[in-house]
Amino acid sequence: MSPPGSQADLDPPAGRAGKTDADILSGPADARRIAAVSQSAIEDTILRPGTVRINVQGAFIVDDEPVTPRSEQYEHDPRDIRLPYHTAVVSHIAVDIGGSLAKIVYFSHEDDATAVGGGRLNFLKFETDQIDSCIEFMRKLQAEHQRLNGSAPEELCVMATGGGAFKYYDRIRDALGVEVIREDEMECLIIGLDFFITEIPNEVFTYSEDQPMSFVPFPPQPPSIYPYLLVNIGSGVSMIKVSGPRQYERIGGTSLGGGTLWGLLTLLTGARNFDDMLKLAEKGDNSTVDLLVGDIYGTDYNKIGLKSTHIASSFGKVYKMKRTAEREAEDGCNCDYKHHEEDELVTGSSELPHGPAKFRPEDISRSLLYAVSNNIGQIAYLHAEKHQLPRIYFGGSFIGGHSQTMNTLSYAIRFWSKGTKQAYFLRHEGYLGAVGAFLKRQPRNWGRRNSFEGRA
Amino acid sequence: MSPPGSQADLDPPAGRAGKTDADILSGPADARRIAAVSQSAIEDTILRPGTVRINVQGAFIVDDEPVTPRSEQYEHDPRDIRLPYHTAVVSHIAVDIGGSLAKIVYFSHEDDATAVGGGRLNFLKFETDQIDSCIEFMRKLQAEHQRLNGSAPEELCVMATGGGAFKYYDRIRDALGVEVIREDEMECLIIGLDFFITEIPNEVFTYSEDQPMSFVPFPPQPPSIYPYLLVNIGSGVSMIKVSGPRQYERIGGTSLGGGTLWGLLTLLTGARNFDDMLKLAEKGDNSTVDLLVGDIYGTDYNKIGLKSTHIASSFGKVYKMKRTAEREAEDGCNCDYKHHEEDELVTGSSELPHGPAKFRPEDISRSLLYAVSNNIGQIAYLHAEKHQLPRIYFGGSFIGGHSQTMNTLSYAIRFWSKGTKQAYFLRHEGYLGAVGAFLKRQPRNWGRRNSFEGRA
Repeated sequence: MSPPGSQADLDPPAGRAGKTDADILSGPADARRIAAVSQSAIEDTILRPGTVRINVQGAFIVDDEPVTPRSEQYEHDPRDIRLPYHTAVVSHIAVDIGGSLAKIVYFSHEDDATAVGGGRLNFLKFETDQIDSCIEFMRKLQAEHQRLNGSAPEELCVMATGGGAFKYYDRIRDALGVEVIREDEMECLIIGLDFFITEIPNEVFTYSEDQPMSFVPFPPQPPSIYPYLLVNIGSGVSMIKVSGPRQYERIGGTSLGGGTLWGLLTLLTGARNFDDMLKLAEKGDNSTVDLLVGDIYGTDYNKIGLKSTHIASSFGKVYKMKRTAEREAEDGCNCDYKHHEEDELVTGSSELPHGPAKFRPEDISRSLLYAVSNNIGQIAYLHAEKHQLPRIYFGGSFIGGHSQTMNTLSYAIRFWSKGTKQAYFLRHEGYLGAVGAFLKRQPRNWGRRNSFEGRA
Repeated sequence: MSPPGSQADLDPPAGRAGKTDADILSGPADARRIAAVSQSAIEDTILRPGTVRINVQGAFIVDDEPVTPRSEQYEHDPRDIRLPYHTAVVSHIAVDIGGSLAKIVYFSHEDDATAVGGGRLNFLKFETDQIDSCIEFMRKLQAEHQRLNGSAPEELCVMATGGGAFKYYDRIRDALGVEVIREDEMECLIIGLDFFITEIPNEVFTYSEDQPMSFVPFPPQPPSIYPYLLVNIGSGVSMIKVSGPRQYERIGGTSLGGGTLWGLLTLLTGARNFDDMLKLAEKGDNSTVDLLVGDIYGTDYNKIGLKSTHIASSFGKVYKMKRTAEREAEDGCNCDYKHHEEDELVTGSSELPHGPAKFRPEDISRSLLYAVSNNIGQIAYLHAEKHQLPRIYFGGSFIGGHSQTMNTLSYAIRFWSKGTKQAYFLRHEGYLGAVGAFLKRQPRNWGRRNSFEGRA
């Protein structure tokens, strides 16, 4: 039996994109797909673009092979969201162009007739410097849309947000010849986050070393999710207080974000990409470069409750050790005081050039990851405290599902709030803005739980 | 006429230390000095150590040639504090041993019979890694004290604070054979700060680009200085809420402090010391490495009031530029896209090793100085806001009287507080803890204004 409001009876599962680079996003099911979509749905879409509501009934996250072919130009997040009961034509795609990454969200119909029908939301990211590849990808989506639905190219609409929506506006519009609707970045972030919190099961989770991924059940009453703090960590960090649906205010931020970690590790290690940097950090020992309370006191600083392992100064040992090494070199002692016991296999684990002191890129990476994450955690806590926000959601591509990062952010929130506040994470943390822009094309409230009921 | 409480009539100006390394702190006036100090003052000091009150009447800062000979092992702050009416023997010295620097404060009598008499507080700093030089210096002070006052070596007392007071306790006691009294770091910091605020003219100032050093007059009522926030920036950063005399609480801190700046710049530039790093920063342009709002939006982000020149991500351009350069290199283009127009004269302005992208050490230094200072400013503001503290004093050796640092901290406080809070700086910012430890040897309240009246 179909759930109320689903169009499963009218529109059987439709064509899904193929996997070769040549016919990206088209596939063997094209003809079937075109026939399958009801003519009225197409007309609705064409005549009244923006009126189609997405049917989120029964939405769930899939961990299967992405639809798009592999490419060096982008990364397809393997966690698509299946929308088993949405069958209407979707005539728009969304892009969120940030300082480092451009994120795309688009809908595709399923072509697997044996599975549940409907379609899925796809999640891709490009480096913003590769904006032309990103635009070219959108152009292919446009061609695909035209072939599947028989519509004119200009009928696809691009929802754009992030700073790049302004910076690259002309370029996207000229390349695609379509309407580009720019949406405010903050608003898109919170629309996306509200959607993930209230509509997608197994999306929001808490993190601790004991319980790495503990999913948060749906809130019993969606309005009870407010107020909250969204900490969005991309190249930089924005902190947004959300008091209710579309009621938000940017209350803070810091320039010490993902771009800082990636930038400094680019200079300090040979790692060529984020993954290599995170792998280095996993193998590192920050106590070789950080000055700990124990290094200063020789013990805990009990009076104020600082453990000897507490980081007093990030990178606080480096200057000292370098000076010591220089003095030893001047005294004729060329001792290498830091021995490397592990094999260095990770790309980028070459040694640093300045001076005789040898610091391991692994240790540097871990120290910097701790420094940036702890710092964001503390500032987030202080803003949450100031505005009395009990819940703190962390979004943005910096997190990338990386356990050390989440653990550090979680720990920082617990440490500073003395356990009174909680950090929440999302499996689609990098796509809040893109999903928000995608949803903004819809009538108000379409994406809210039970919104499909209006179609019954 | 002598001011009330001064002992000028009894004790004429006494011996001041000479300037050769051989007889450090001794001088031609030794014999005169010994005769000049009244026998009763010596007996008082020996029989009741710790009972001597320092006479701060008419104290002022001097900018003359330091008393101690130049040495590579330490730096003598040129801003001694003259105490024209203090003549009694002072039988203690104070040391504050932090993660990176050890600071010494000691009293010496003036030997210049033509000037006003009394003595002066001397301020020196060593690198903590050179702790043996620091201890040796204290040993010489001890020998000098014995020669001048005829007392036994063990009668000098060392007041010690900072983490190193615990870590190096045995070493100092064994080397000098004296009593080492350890004092809590936080308490010393605020005792020192209270002293500077209420007793030393032209010590506290505000900073802005228009008015680089605007001295703050004495508070009309000393108790009105509370409550305030002390942000002490050494290797790491401590934030201390002060509610009244000796009423304090450490409410926060960050590991991103001076040690982080010095450590990362050690790795990233060839600069060998703090001064070189600051000189590099002065010549730098952070917009070549930082991602600005304008780089993302192409314009201001007006909706939330962010200017195009606002730093969105510190070092946010580095990863992107490196990737671009790598792609160009792969495509056979070896263009050097960053041209150096200025001569590179500062030590440490050599280029970085990783990858073809060339980033100037000057630009890196300025970016990091901004990042660390802005970050401390924001966290300080948030703590001040949370605890409703109207004034924020910045202490610690990180600041070092450096205008860019003070300007950034001042700007950050003004920016975040929308002009409702003010940053204050001190000319002896690095010596709060050492002065506090020095003063702790005294009976309570000795160093408070008018405390000398008890001697009248």
